[in-house]
Amino acid sequence: MKNPPALEQLINALKVLPGVGPKTAQRMAFHLLQQDKSGAQKLAQALERALHNLRHCQRCNTFSETPLCPLCSDSKRQQQLLCVVEMPADLFTLEQAKCFDGLYFVLMGRISPLDNIGPHDINLDKLLLRTQEEALQEVIIATNFTAEGEVTAHMISELLKERGLQVSRIARGMPVGGELEYVDLGTLAQAVYERRGIG
Amino acid sequence: MKNPPALEQLINALKVLPGVGPKTAQRMAFHLLQQDKSGAQKLAQALERALHNLRHCQRCNTFSETPLCPLCSDSKRQQQLLCVVEMPADLFTLEQAKCFDGLYFVLMGRISPLDNIGPHDINLDKLLLRTQEEALQEVIIATNFTAEGEVTAHMISELLKERGLQVSRIARGMPVGGELEYVDLGTLAQAVYERRGIG
Repeated sequence: MKNPPALEQLINALKVLPGVGPKTAQRMAFHLLQQDKSGAQKLAQALERALHNLRHCQRCNTFSETPLCPLCSDSKRQQQLLCVVEMPADLFTLEQAKCFDGLYFVLMGRISPLDNIGPHDINLDKLLLRTQEEALQEVIIATNFTAEGEVTAHMISELLKERGLQVSRIARGMPVGGELEYVDLGTLAQAVYERRGIG
Repeated sequence: MKNPPALEQLINALKVLPGVGPKTAQRMAFHLLQQDKSGAQKLAQALERALHNLRHCQRCNTFSETPLCPLCSDSKRQQQLLCVVEMPADLFTLEQAKCFDGLYFVLMGRISPLDNIGPHDINLDKLLLRTQEEALQEVIIATNFTAEGEVTAHMISELLKERGLQVSRIARGMPVGGELEYVDLGTLAQAVYERRGIG
């Protein structure tokens, strides 16, 4: 006794989603077919449209429907600052913080040997090409402070410093409004190691 | 600063999947577009095929690509026994246990007031119609032993008993091979209440 082939195929197809195993895939398939057929139809269409229309911005590598993304086409942004992030979501978070008015480069990943993602899989060639633009003065590395993000940051800073570029890393330390009692100990220790002189 | 529309649409479309919120949907969309475009293509096609080809078996209500599912068309199954389950997955589990050679009825759901799923949403009319078949002698209710499954079992048994049908419920109790020390207390208590005479 098995599922009909069309259902089995849908369950298998749903397993390509990250974090979705056979049981979840089956639950998702039943949900779509039983409770949300219009949602399933929208999903199929959205997948087709995204596959067809989305490419990478020629300059910053983020997802874009145009050759240059709106941010890279914005002449009001400071051309001499480039901030390197892992994913578009990181770019959005930085934009929400309104702390940076330069341009970005989105790696679309991080070096992660465990997931078989090496330096060649995160668009470093495209980054090196981008950093040859004349106006550029400083590259700020804003990958995550995870093991993978740190390795990625290290690799990029070595590559860029070889080429004589000024490279910096966003600071680690206590969160704004944070209380020592409640912050995690690793962060607290880093905040002590990386203390800054006052006045 | 926002995602391009095609990406935003895909993220929203992925949120129809059960258990998928905005953050997970975004992660899924990035994964599909970045690491698994062929998987995304297969998913779109599988959704289209499933929406187009799958219907419900006229007799047992499970998903089927044919008007009658293979199990309902199998004349070797006992026609006088009908087992009522919530979902196709439950049917497969019972088939794997090789404990039953009658036929099934799949509700495709359970009564669940919290999810706004009432008696009219779980195909009870189709079940009542099915139980009018002459050969039928006994209906075995095998919904889950969750609050929702129990309410559903109660509702079905009342409806069928009114119509003079013999109705039973699969047994609760200790698992085979189970040790008292390790079984959960609710199950142990039920096993005591529902004890059976020996010999």
